[in-house]
Amino acid sequence: MQEVEQESPELDERCINTIRFLSLDMVQRAKSGHAGTPMGAADMAYVLWDRFLKHNPRDPGWVDRDRFILSQGHACAMLYSLLFLTGYDLSLDELRNFRQWGSKTPGHPEYGLTPGVSVTTGPLGQGFAHGVGMAIAEKWLGDHYNRDDYKIFDHFTYATCSDGDMQEGVTSEAASLAGTLHLGKLIYLYDDNGAQIDTSTDVTFGENVAERFRAYGWQVLGPISGVELDAMSSAIKDAQRETERPSLIICRTMIGRYAPKEGIHVMHSDPIPDEEVKAAKQNANWPADKTFYVPDDVLSHMRRAVERGRKEEARWDETFQKYSSDYPELAERLKVQLRGDLPANWDAGLDELFTSAKDPMATREASGKILNTIAERVHALFGGSADVGSSTKSVLTGYGDFGWHEYAGHNIHFGVREHAMGCIAGGLALHGGVIPYTATYFNFSDYMRPPMRLAAMQKIRVIYIFSHDSIGLGQDGPTHQPVEQLMGLREIPNMTVLRPADPSETVEAWRLAMRNSNGPTVLVLTRQKIPVIDREKENCSSAEGARRGGYVLWSSKEGDPSLILIATGSEVHLALEAGKRLAEERPDETIRVVSIPSWEVFDKQSKEYKESVLPHNVRARVSVEAGATIGWEHYVGLDGGKVGLDRFGASGPSEVVYQKLGFTPEHVMQVANETMQRIRNQEGGG
Amino acid sequence: MQEVEQESPELDERCINTIRFLSLDMVQRAKSGHAGTPMGAADMAYVLWDRFLKHNPRDPGWVDRDRFILSQGHACAMLYSLLFLTGYDLSLDELRNFRQWGSKTPGHPEYGLTPGVSVTTGPLGQGFAHGVGMAIAEKWLGDHYNRDDYKIFDHFTYATCSDGDMQEGVTSEAASLAGTLHLGKLIYLYDDNGAQIDTSTDVTFGENVAERFRAYGWQVLGPISGVELDAMSSAIKDAQRETERPSLIICRTMIGRYAPKEGIHVMHSDPIPDEEVKAAKQNANWPADKTFYVPDDVLSHMRRAVERGRKEEARWDETFQKYSSDYPELAERLKVQLRGDLPANWDAGLDELFTSAKDPMATREASGKILNTIAERVHALFGGSADVGSSTKSVLTGYGDFGWHEYAGHNIHFGVREHAMGCIAGGLALHGGVIPYTATYFNFSDYMRPPMRLAAMQKIRVIYIFSHDSIGLGQDGPTHQPVEQLMGLREIPNMTVLRPADPSETVEAWRLAMRNSNGPTVLVLTRQKIPVIDREKENCSSAEGARRGGYVLWSSKEGDPSLILIATGSEVHLALEAGKRLAEERPDETIRVVSIPSWEVFDKQSKEYKESVLPHNVRARVSVEAGATIGWEHYVGLDGGKVGLDRFGASGPSEVVYQKLGFTPEHVMQVANETMQRIRNQEGGG
Repeated sequence: MQEVEQESPELDERCINTIRFLSLDMVQRAKSGHAGTPMGAADMAYVLWDRFLKHNPRDPGWVDRDRFILSQGHACAMLYSLLFLTGYDLSLDELRNFRQWGSKTPGHPEYGLTPGVSVTTGPLGQGFAHGVGMAIAEKWLGDHYNRDDYKIFDHFTYATCSDGDMQEGVTSEAASLAGTLHLGKLIYLYDDNGAQIDTSTDVTFGENVAERFRAYGWQVLGPISGVELDAMSSAIKDAQRETERPSLIICRTMIGRYAPKEGIHVMHSDPIPDEEVKAAKQNANWPADKTFYVPDDVLSHMRRAVERGRKEEARWDETFQKYSSDYPELAERLKVQLRGDLPANWDAGLDELFTSAKDPMATREASGKILNTIAERVHALFGGSADVGSSTKSVLTGYGDFGWHEYAGHNIHFGVREHAMGCIAGGLALHGGVIPYTATYFNFSDYMRPPMRLAAMQKIRVIYIFSHDSIGLGQDGPTHQPVEQLMGLREIPNMTVLRPADPSETVEAWRLAMRNSNGPTVLVLTRQKIPVIDREKENCSSAEGARRGGYVLWSSKEGDPSLILIATGSEVHLALEAGKRLAEERPDETIRVVSIPSWEVFDKQSKEYKESVLPHNVRARVSVEAGATIGWEHYVGLDGGKVGLDRFGASGPSEVVYQKLGFTPEHVMQVANETMQRIRNQEGGG
Repeated sequence: MQEVEQESPELDERCINTIRFLSLDMVQRAKSGHAGTPMGAADMAYVLWDRFLKHNPRDPGWVDRDRFILSQGHACAMLYSLLFLTGYDLSLDELRNFRQWGSKTPGHPEYGLTPGVSVTTGPLGQGFAHGVGMAIAEKWLGDHYNRDDYKIFDHFTYATCSDGDMQEGVTSEAASLAGTLHLGKLIYLYDDNGAQIDTSTDVTFGENVAERFRAYGWQVLGPISGVELDAMSSAIKDAQRETERPSLIICRTMIGRYAPKEGIHVMHSDPIPDEEVKAAKQNANWPADKTFYVPDDVLSHMRRAVERGRKEEARWDETFQKYSSDYPELAERLKVQLRGDLPANWDAGLDELFTSAKDPMATREASGKILNTIAERVHALFGGSADVGSSTKSVLTGYGDFGWHEYAGHNIHFGVREHAMGCIAGGLALHGGVIPYTATYFNFSDYMRPPMRLAAMQKIRVIYIFSHDSIGLGQDGPTHQPVEQLMGLREIPNMTVLRPADPSETVEAWRLAMRNSNGPTVLVLTRQKIPVIDREKENCSSAEGARRGGYVLWSSKEGDPSLILIATGSEVHLALEAGKRLAEERPDETIRVVSIPSWEVFDKQSKEYKESVLPHNVRARVSVEAGATIGWEHYVGLDGGKVGLDRFGASGPSEVVYQKLGFTPEHVMQVANETMQRIRNQEGGG
């Protein structure tokens, strides 16, 4: 707990006005953006940053810094002002370049682009929930690595959040879980300004936020005035002292403070007329004729953050040095974790897992065994499911439950809260020291798309396990049967989607997932048992081919193929059977079966390799996948055939549904024959 | 308010056990499903259905029936038992066929498949939120159509919901809005059994649900015992009497009641051993050797619902008859609304809206004018936005706000609650009498995918307005710039996605949307101004072509094209300019520009029409769309070119971002030239 001696109220006020009017000037200059919130919340942000926040502007990645999240990302002008003033690598010129192409000051805060931004925010509610992930990481790492005299992990997670954040369901999910988990080091400041874009809040937001958060098990402080610095200070101190409950500090603020239209929802966004800018500055006793004005004493006061941060981190470094000599093994393992590296031999045992597997096995089952094997060596693996651990096979057996009685447990029970689960996983990854995974049914990836998109945008390592991946799940019916999800996720930039065909490919899929430190990975797994491809007996190539995303699994003989069947996951064995039967019918022709567990990985291979798998001139191609077909033309073109599903599924036993909807060797053969015929006709006629 | 005289407690108990064990027998026979909740919640459901529910089993579509929603859709065996027992068109044989292909008793309740199912449920939280939509419809229609002596709309909306429902964020969103709107006729029974799939609730759900709902402005009754029928009855009566607040009745129940493992979370799903079935029946004094046992007196007691329902509806019919003669115009309009028809001349004025439009205009702007023109004639139009009404141009000017002071207002302020907004729109559509629309930024369609999927599955009419449809929105940056959303939504079965190119196409898009009564429609609109295509001057064909999904917008001359540029929305004018410049460079060749605002509509056209737009043999095709390119091979094949976006966007002024990311005539021309060259090489070499 760190508190710096107070300066004079006058200087405080000048600092706040500097933040306020830098933000306004940025928006005015960009002719775009949101100054209303910065103008109202500048006091709150100043108190937190000036009196409490533990951070080192010269090392934004320091692992034990307090985390700060601007959940209302649209107010980023305020954050950029703070980053500049406290000495991050962000110049006043960058503030002048607000919202311009190539600047470090984009329209919403972007992790990885601007030093000091701990998470990309903007879509409301996401920041709130990502913070819960960061607080979980702090607890978990602390429980594993802290020792009596060594508090290696000992930081707060702060956020500011808005009315809009409070309305989003994901906030509710995350807050409920944070309360249940007693995340006492979570301290959120609610910028209660009563104004949203369209209306004031009473039209659409009549609830009692304080009571709601108390019901979640939070300590609620306030409402207090968002301009009374000492009141806010003492609330933050109360929040720090409360170790068992997360704290929500409700600060009543006025949107667009000092502007002629202060307090009115129209102040939410967009520049205001020049005369109103002038009036606002005059009302605040600020030089009305200056823009981007930073008084020297303000700058030097706020830049003390640099020296403070340097000292804080040096103290931590010293502690860590001593810790390393007292607990060398722990320290060593921790360093690996913090770098995001995998330990040596991390994948030992994987190749042997299924060598004697013969009986049909669901890929979720295989995944569960793999996950547990990896966990033996990779301590950083930490995750859980949205109340379907048993059926997604995502439980780390023997590693305990993460909960307030045992923060060291590796299994997080997210509850039926998929959206928050996605955000929390993002927060874990952003915190560092953790390789997070989540698990639920594939259909409910729909609930998680917003944080999955953010993870892809931030290129962070999160592994999403999804089982029950198609109509093959059977009796639960169409509400639970994914159709469009597979292609839908392939559309997300930077996302790697993997749908393995059997246990061996599942091993390779996990290898790719664990090694992918430059973005999130989706694992798409069956609920139903599917045949284990006996690669020797069936004359198939090794599953190692999956490392290249796609590969020739089987070919009826040498030479250019007359037909290529291309499949993923549970449809690979179907394509294989169809291919073999076609080859029997057409002994003169070369029939090829390609397994393509990951489009993204395959598409990144060399042109030569891709040509070797899918020769450009071979147009008799048929895709087989139990999902939507739009997009499969990516591989089969305008002339190919597609066995897929362009309707919703149906409830019935797995094998019946599968068969009724056309996933049989006979149907694949029929489409293949039609495709070959069609192409021959075209070539004959062309 | 309807209450039927009580029968003997013994008969009640037998009725409840019939529901309980029919449900268990169904799951045992199907070897799949969830009997735990039906066994625990049968008492609660019985009280509601036997003593309160106003419904007519012989006319499940009666508009003034009470709505019943099983939000925990996995407990559908209970609902099917109730439907059978109360006399819906669902036989005991159908119960025996639970979860089988072709049965009317699928694994989760499906609207349209099973008589008496008012909404498809299963994905948790959705049912809860759809119910809020139904209650809003009742209020709104009531405020418009009820007259002093005529309560045309006067029903309750009931739901049962589970712990899982309570954890989902969408429930929080919907509950907060329902409280704000004072939806007093919403009565929800919370099946508080303390058990979820993986764990008991204390591990993951420590919150105080009662206090949380009080904070939302709900009346909370209980907790009461979920086996005490009279206590539940009197709570339901209290709920009915409370007209200003929605009510949550908390019933403490025991999952899998009477089974040896009652109360334990393992009872959640899947069949149990035969001896446990026997034991359960014995514990309940139920014949242990019988399955699907329905005592005669139970059936005749519960079938009284048929006669009661007949009388209730007859009474309503009589009222409506009188109403029709007292208020013939209102009644006539209402009948049209209830049939889901559009009034005669509903689209009058649309064609004239933009005849003199010359200056660039955003399609969101055009959409706003169209929406307001349609509203003049289509009273059923009712919707709103997630706090971005002004910027999505979705406000119905002069039609008032829907709120508890004025339930007749046409504009719903959903707040920043996209997920609930989607569900509520679904509930409005399912209620009937309303053509609902929603509005937000296109990027936040990600928050709404679960209810959009359900709407598509149920084939209900909902219009989703999405503005800010691409990187063209500019400075808000990548967190707000859609990339993958367009293709992602095209993948959903039964969904119609429309992305018009200018005001005239926007008119046609709205026509298609309004006429599409067999599924939901997505309207994808620009934030930025784009040129109005002057079809006469530019020698372009009429926007009426958009009615067929896609059409030849422009051709440099007659004859088979050498190149086809295919574009949607804001990229059509770009393709047009590129096409014209290419034609200048290549006067001997025919360059064609195709606008394809809707893939779904186009793909449904005749083979001949499609061939006339995209001749099969012409392979020099280039797509132009500011979104992900995977999927565009659907039209351009393996050999075509694609101008699109396979990365996230960036913050900057619209025109800069657009240009930097390749959306210029020059870049389109370059890709087109490369494509033509490549294809010529292939044809030359082939």
